[in-house]
Amino acid sequence: MSVSGGVGGPPARSWSVYLAGEIHSDWRERIEAGVGEAGLPVSFSAPVTDHAASDDAGVGTLREEGEAFWRDHMGAGVNGIRTQTLIRAADVVVVRFGDKYRQWNAAFDAGWAAALDKPYVTLHDPEFDHALKEVDRAAQAVARTPEQVVAVLRYVITGKLP
Amino acid sequence: MSVSGGVGGPPARSWSVYLAGEIHSDWRERIEAGVGEAGLPVSFSAPVTDHAASDDAGVGTLREEGEAFWRDHMGAGVNGIRTQTLIRAADVVVVRFGDKYRQWNAAFDAGWAAALDKPYVTLHDPEFDHALKEVDRAAQAVARTPEQVVAVLRYVITGKLP
Amino acid sequence: MSVSGGVGGPPARSWSVYLAGEIHSDWRERIEAGVGEAGLPVSFSAPVTDHAASDDAGVGTLREEGEAFWRDHMGAGVNGIRTQTLIRAADVVVVRFGDKYRQWNAAFDAGWAAALDKPYVTLHDPEFDHALKEVDRAAQAVARTPEQVVAVLRYVITGKLP
Amino acid sequence: MSVSGGVGGPPARSWSVYLAGEIHSDWRERIEAGVGEAGLPVSFSAPVTDHAASDDAGVGTLREEGEAFWRDHMGAGVNGIRTQTLIRAADVVVVRFGDKYRQWNAAFDAGWAAALDKPYVTLHDPEFDHALKEVDRAAQAVARTPEQVVAVLRYVITGKLP
Amino acid sequence: MSVSGGVGGPPARSWSVYLAGEIHSDWRERIEAGVGEAGLPVSFSAPVTDHAASDDAGVGTLREEGEAFWRDHMGAGVNGIRTQTLIRAADVVVVRFGDKYRQWNAAFDAGWAAALDKPYVTLHDPEFDHALKEVDRAAQAVARTPEQVVAVLRYVITGKLP
Amino acid sequence: MSVSGGVGGPPARSWSVYLAGEIHSDWRERIEAGVGEAGLPVSFSAPVTDHAASDDAGVGTLREEGEAFWRDHMGAGVNGIRTQTLIRAADVVVVRFGDKYRQWNAAFDAGWAAALDKPYVTLHDPEFDHALKEVDRAAQAVARTPEQVVAVLRYVITGKLP
Amino acid sequence: MSVSGGVGGPPARSWSVYLAGEIHSDWRERIEAGVGEAGLPVSFSAPVTDHAASDDAGVGTLREEGEAFWRDHMGAGVNGIRTQTLIRAADVVVVRFGDKYRQWNAAFDAGWAAALDKPYVTLHDPEFDHALKEVDRAAQAVARTPEQVVAVLRYVITGKLP
Amino acid sequence: MSVSGGVGGPPARSWSVYLAGEIHSDWRERIEAGVGEAGLPVSFSAPVTDHAASDDAGVGTLREEGEAFWRDHMGAGVNGIRTQTLIRAADVVVVRFGDKYRQWNAAFDAGWAAALDKPYVTLHDPEFDHALKEVDRAAQAVARTPEQVVAVLRYVITGKLP
Repeated sequence: MSVSGGVGGPPARSWSVYLAGEIHSDWRERIEAGVGEAGLPVSFSAPVTDHAASDDAGVGTLREEGEAFWRDHMGAGVNGIRTQTLIRAADVVVVRFGDKYRQWNAAFDAGWAAALDKPYVTLHDPEFDHALKEVDRAAQAVARTPEQVVAVLRYVITGKLP
Repeated sequence: MSVSGGVGGPPARSWSVYLAGEIHSDWRERIEAGVGEAGLPVSFSAPVTDHAASDDAGVGTLREEGEAFWRDHMGAGVNGIRTQTLIRAADVVVVRFGDKYRQWNAAFDAGWAAALDKPYVTLHDPEFDHALKEVDRAAQAVARTPEQVVAVLRYVITGKLP
Repeated sequence: MSVSGGVGGPPARSWSVYLAGEIHSDWRERIEAGVGEAGLPVSFSAPVTDHAASDDAGVGTLREEGEAFWRDHMGAGVNGIRTQTLIRAADVVVVRFGDKYRQWNAAFDAGWAAALDKPYVTLHDPEFDHALKEVDRAAQAVARTPEQVVAVLRYVITGKLP
Repeated sequence: MSVSGGVGGPPARSWSVYLAGEIHSDWRERIEAGVGEAGLPVSFSAPVTDHAASDDAGVGTLREEGEAFWRDHMGAGVNGIRTQTLIRAADVVVVRFGDKYRQWNAAFDAGWAAALDKPYVTLHDPEFDHALKEVDRAAQAVARTPEQVVAVLRYVITGKLP
Repeated sequence: MSVSGGVGGPPARSWSVYLAGEIHSDWRERIEAGVGEAGLPVSFSAPVTDHAASDDAGVGTLREEGEAFWRDHMGAGVNGIRTQTLIRAADVVVVRFGDKYRQWNAAFDAGWAAALDKPYVTLHDPEFDHALKEVDRAAQAVARTPEQVVAVLRYVITGKLP
Repeated sequence: MSVSGGVGGPPARSWSVYLAGEIHSDWRERIEAGVGEAGLPVSFSAPVTDHAASDDAGVGTLREEGEAFWRDHMGAGVNGIRTQTLIRAADVVVVRFGDKYRQWNAAFDAGWAAALDKPYVTLHDPEFDHALKEVDRAAQAVARTPEQVVAVLRYVITGKLP
Repeated sequence: MSVSGGVGGPPARSWSVYLAGEIHSDWRERIEAGVGEAGLPVSFSAPVTDHAASDDAGVGTLREEGEAFWRDHMGAGVNGIRTQTLIRAADVVVVRFGDKYRQWNAAFDAGWAAALDKPYVTLHDPEFDHALKEVDRAAQAVARTPEQVVAVLRYVITGKLP
Repeated sequence: MSVSGGVGGPPARSWSVYLAGEIHSDWRERIEAGVGEAGLPVSFSAPVTDHAASDDAGVGTLREEGEAFWRDHMGAGVNGIRTQTLIRAADVVVVRFGDKYRQWNAAFDAGWAAALDKPYVTLHDPEFDHALKEVDRAAQAVARTPEQVVAVLRYVITGKLP
């Protein structure tokens, strides 16, 4: 079928993929690289992954705030404009859980995606399987490596297995 | 009216048509060919129609799994990313019921389309009329041949009868 | 504001306008002509306005049917694929009530548009004001002539009065 | 199954049925009487059926208004509070088309019900079949007499045929 | 927690469970019996399970119809009033696939439930696992016996395992 | 205003409150006790809080499963029937984050509630403020103690401050 | 029709009416009194109308906060639990604009109601007609006195004019 | 991440921003200028900001009307076609409250945006903080100057702080 485009066919459908979660490793780059090599028609989006900028999203754009709680509150509000808009605009969400920090964020985004009926894929090591069982159950797939996510996207878009 | 484009008018609206159901005969190709001959602005999408690939959608992208039940479960999850996304993005769904296998899949997709208020057309032989009565009742049309589906699409898009 | 485009600005937003109702006078052509003269970025859509084709939408595409009731039923199903899709895709709906026939169709489309939160404009003579009061009340505007509809669209899109 | 209640079982589910359309014949009373005789757990609702009161719904509750158009407009607004609320609260809608007046109202309510995914039944003579084909196509059933509507409701609620 | 009621606490929440699918074995009775023995606050609903009545739902309530296709069409419309209303009103749906007939119906209801975000449980023998993989994947649980469904309902409602 | 009932007035509206998150401390009991003392018309619901039962939700109701991943998967599916149903039925959600385990669950439920437009209150110590900033930002209130949650509920329901 | 109950008929449907806006005059009491005299089956709800309590909704339930902006922010969050829940649960909303303060609140609630398809009635003096034209246009009725609101509710519920 | 485009990457996502509220100062121009200087891919939309044209939106397009109330009513209906369509099409809404007039309009649009889950930013002086607390609480950010709004948009779109 021509869903991913073909010789002489209509232009390929472009898929929007939102990459949620951990910001301390290179998993997003690896997925982007793999998708690029596979030549898939995907446009990626993500939260702001510069940790310092993300933490200052409120005070850096609006005004100073002395109390930590309200600094975070302002920042989370500004970050939410981006994340809510991009998750709503996505076809598929990938949610990465790393081994540092608590990453409640990632689980929050997964819940949001689930309730909006966005299909999502989780990406994490087996050590978190038990803790993430509800999050994984509502996912369409549980991947261990960025390369597996690329394989899933290639199959979903082109129908081809590696 | 210029809905399907005209000389000097704005570009034609493109219609998205999802072709669900049976994967063992050439009905999709016949619809695509007919629509191509008629020059209709339609982009088609479909589930993965390579049966072997579809069955291995999980183990071929994620990891090995010994038990048949869970192999299928993983595969269906990956296939679901594609089918859910494309059905939601479709304007019209065509659902084909063939004479082999049980094809609960096709009926499941029809139910999904119905609940999402997607207009759909069924395509099957009269021998299944009684068994498919609820599925047909919620459809906008019941066709017997791919050529009838093409005629419906041409009329819906251009307003012209054969 | 640049919503309707400007020199050096981004391309203008295109508005989708569905023209529902009466098919026996030239009101659609007059609106299209007026909108064309005003240079507005509008793409129109409409039901099939060829009365004979519309009546044969089912038997002309699917198969013969001897009983009038079921002929109509099949035809209405096929027509519904077009009308439901285009109303859902429209930004604005115009609903015309003429002086012939009962035109329950037009009122049905208005109810559909209202329930889907599509803003719509009715177009009819004052003699029908009382009979159409509920339909008019849920409308954003009641016009008497196609030229008034053009004036409304021009204002809505460009912010300019005649 | 115990859906309609049984000896010793839980109390029966009550069904809400909205009776839309014509207000000049006794069809509502006949349906209510038939449903009462059959002992069905149904609560009915309807628009205001006192024609004079309905026409004065605005000026009788809010304030005088000299122009006929705005009198109707005010009245339709007040009537809409009732009709919108009760249609949204209904499980099933019955829409009656009589032989007097244009009854665009009834078709408007049918369109509203259709777009809200409320199952509805139309009730009208065969002479209107062609004019009502789109309205009938989106209905779950087309009845000719109030007694048929009662038979449908009895079957739907109890599973019993006459 | 008091969600299922306790001594001196507020009345228990009542759960609505719709039992879809096969009508030729006693699985519904076994679930009802088991739930009754467990004293769970559940009200059940179901399609009409009298096969003959269900087939005559249209001609038995509305009018004669000679052609089999349209007889079925009328019947499915009337049955749809019941099934659509009750599935929408349900908290949980159970979908049974038996070994006779094609039961596209059951799969259609499952698709409907899935698209409406109703959690559902499938009930079928392992021989159908492969054919039902997409239907099972979108389910919250796959049961083999009515007693397992009762165990799931008891756990879901009371938090107690057998 | 009589929203919470008064002498001779209509019965008070009952509020449904879902208590999500940590299951290792007595915060639910403290909220229930406080609400009981305040005489508020609240019915509570919650996930299954018996940790062992919750972990065995799948294998205890359906069938044995040797692999830990699929045991958890089956259990999470069964638990999801309860949690999804009760969150959808709730007016207000309270989400507790404790100091043990990763509790991605709680954040997942918060995301779900947020996307469904359910107002929710978080309950956690200040040490988690930074990690929970996005979850807190989408909340209506951030409480530190169960007693503060009771105060919020009392105020929301009765309009009275302590 | 029995929608408002009758002798021997089923119990009357109860209507939920939310009274939004101004909290400095006795308009709510006058509507409640009028509805009580008319014996209408209405249950009212409203925001917290004790101005001091409403301003302290956050600091009175959660914790001290020195900055006025954040005090208000916390209070508005807690108040929002009540107002969002009750507006969503209402059948009809009445929005009162008085002559003191800016009352952006009231307009905010009206916008919320409009977007949720809740029918609403505004209540204000003619001097605000021009400033409130958009708010009034999306309303079903514009009343000048609480007694007119009572007349509208009586008509909507019973079909009787004064 | 490539969400805002990069060298050799796919074209940047374009963001739709609706600028609601005050029409008597140059805040829209300042935001447009700032966004232009920053080279952000934003397309703006807004209500008609020509006060005289906006007031005559009804009588200037449809027909004369002597009574002020109905003149406004007609005008607000026509303006609503534009504002409803553009707010629904927006990703982000900015709502400006100035120091003149009552601007219930702006609060109405904010309520509409909130109920439709559109993230919005308010823009106003601190003197209105208390009066706008509910409107601000449902916002993602509260800005004091157009330049702060530009900083928020730049950060949201590019992830860069000033």
